[in-house]
Amino acid sequence: MRWGTAPPTPAPPASPRSVSGVHVSELPTPALVVDRAAFERNVGRMAAIRPGPALRPHVKAFKSTALARRLADSGHRGFCCATTREVLGMAAAGLGDDLLLANETLDPQRLRAMAALDVPVTVAVDSDETVDAAARAGIAGVLVDVEVGLPRCGCDPDDAGRLADRARAAGMEVRGVMGYEGHVNVVLDRAERRVAVEQAMQQLLRAHELVGGDVVSGGGTMTAELNEWVTEVQAGTYVLMDTSFAPHVPFEIAVGVEATVISVSARGWAVADAGLKAFGMDHGDPTLRGAEVWIVSDEHVTFAGLDVAVGDRVRLLPAHLDPTAAKHERMWVLDGDEVVDEWAVDLRHW
Amino acid sequence: MRWGTAPPTPAPPASPRSVSGVHVSELPTPALVVDRAAFERNVGRMAAIRPGPALRPHVKAFKSTALARRLADSGHRGFCCATTREVLGMAAAGLGDDLLLANETLDPQRLRAMAALDVPVTVAVDSDETVDAAARAGIAGVLVDVEVGLPRCGCDPDDAGRLADRARAAGMEVRGVMGYEGHVNVVLDRAERRVAVEQAMQQLLRAHELVGGDVVSGGGTMTAELNEWVTEVQAGTYVLMDTSFAPHVPFEIAVGVEATVISVSARGWAVADAGLKAFGMDHGDPTLRGAEVWIVSDEHVTFAGLDVAVGDRVRLLPAHLDPTAAKHERMWVLDGDEVVDEWAVDLRHW
Repeated sequence: MRWGTAPPTPAPPASPRSVSGVHVSELPTPALVVDRAAFERNVGRMAAIRPGPALRPHVKAFKSTALARRLADSGHRGFCCATTREVLGMAAAGLGDDLLLANETLDPQRLRAMAALDVPVTVAVDSDETVDAAARAGIAGVLVDVEVGLPRCGCDPDDAGRLADRARAAGMEVRGVMGYEGHVNVVLDRAERRVAVEQAMQQLLRAHELVGGDVVSGGGTMTAELNEWVTEVQAGTYVLMDTSFAPHVPFEIAVGVEATVISVSARGWAVADAGLKAFGMDHGDPTLRGAEVWIVSDEHVTFAGLDVAVGDRVRLLPAHLDPTAAKHERMWVLDGDEVVDEWAVDLRHW
Repeated sequence: MRWGTAPPTPAPPASPRSVSGVHVSELPTPALVVDRAAFERNVGRMAAIRPGPALRPHVKAFKSTALARRLADSGHRGFCCATTREVLGMAAAGLGDDLLLANETLDPQRLRAMAALDVPVTVAVDSDETVDAAARAGIAGVLVDVEVGLPRCGCDPDDAGRLADRARAAGMEVRGVMGYEGHVNVVLDRAERRVAVEQAMQQLLRAHELVGGDVVSGGGTMTAELNEWVTEVQAGTYVLMDTSFAPHVPFEIAVGVEATVISVSARGWAVADAGLKAFGMDHGDPTLRGAEVWIVSDEHVTFAGLDVAVGDRVRLLPAHLDPTAAKHERMWVLDGDEVVDEWAVDLRHW
């Protein structure tokens, strides 16, 4: 490894024997588990809404080439990545038909590592500095990232044409624009959300007129079925979901963290062995159906209201998928209570 | 790997050349960094308060054998672990003089893996089930874990003697008791906190009278200098600290996450490349001194109030150390702005 380069995360050691036939209760806990049937329903629903290249799945939500391969098999061959490791790992897994780093980076070694791949990589740019860094590294294609209402990356729509010209002058292909309307995710009424998406996308389309190219990329799980202005939607959460998004979109929770009850108090609470290191906590506590979660500490969740004994298993639902998946080495795929597959979370870190 | 066994996390690939002389601005971001001088001051302060075996450092806070070795070198040869991987990794690193799994587990394969080590391992028990699981696996020693006010693991103090008898009858050595008074961490007035610690420790001492053994283990960073009732304090956060604990104890923040400014908006905000996957978020947003943090999203922090340009570096301070460290593969040790060492975070996962 050269200094500062970013190899794919080494996969965790694989189990030496087939996992088929193992009961979920035999898994060491905490264990990230995927309900295969629910996952497949989510994939099918999205493929009906946004078939083939109309969806560019975002691997940052699940960070697994094994899962991404299922999406490629269902017709989505282009992928979004948030990190260089995700790009390099997807390419190494043979999933590099059309990889987009939907994020800005200035890191010359990371940019060069992506440019050196034998598959085409497109990166997002939103400033002179990010255009110039991409060009210097030999990146082939860019999307001009446009701010459409979320206070994060993205240029002013009126500056997009100038950045496109700068990128073309530096020898790069300008494939189009991207803009993420994540600020509308808090608009829970579907009709109001659609209006907010349209307002955001009008800014993206205005930028697209100045930029050119075939691609207008935007959206996410919360807007996938509403955003009719983009050529492709960037969505990842929909495959497994979480308790924050699930009430608002036509996808179901297909993920959980299996935990073991390790202590039961006569004073009215119980403790299971999944805590802050097993859950992304920014959207709040995980949910344990039928129980009230009292405390989540480093390695424990304390809950009440559920009649459990020491040794019982419970399954908690994460409030935010992306940072939850990023904490685990693998997902166990379940058919009911039977483990039928193991997917490495092999695209972690940066 | 046998099914369900828990090997130490493979160390991330080491940098092939010495890191000495590398400037912090050359590190790929986000990067977990440690200020060596501040770290050494923290270690020295604690060694003065709780010298040698009066402190049993808790590796769950930092999950690094390289860091733990510095604590062993400063006289603390016994360690607390929260997971089996931590126990096995510490033993493999030659730091297994006296390892305590300060947590309950029922997992027979994990218990057997610890019992099979050629170093002595003590585990916490708080129920018939956890006593019996430890005995069946051949664990040599236990501490009876007593609930002293925090709604988490731990038996009723009045039940501690019975559990000790059960453990002895099963052939295990009962080394004493442990009880964590984490509920007092919210008592920010030092004098009031001391009173709350004493109340909790009276329960632990009552249990100790019933249990016997040499060890009375408790406490943490927030109570290390107040808890005069235990024979050993379990503290880990003090070595690196975070913004939640720092105002309340005589240790300083020695850790940060170095990030690169990747986007600056004319509308008044800037974005750096460290987000939800780089910080434990349960205690709130990271702090960027001089700035107001607006949004933390998966890979980004949006902030305002600091005059920065694209490409600048910023250093964010985590609100909670333990789940932050657990997200990183390595810590870079700094002498000022110079990188002088690299410590693998090699005790991650379960």
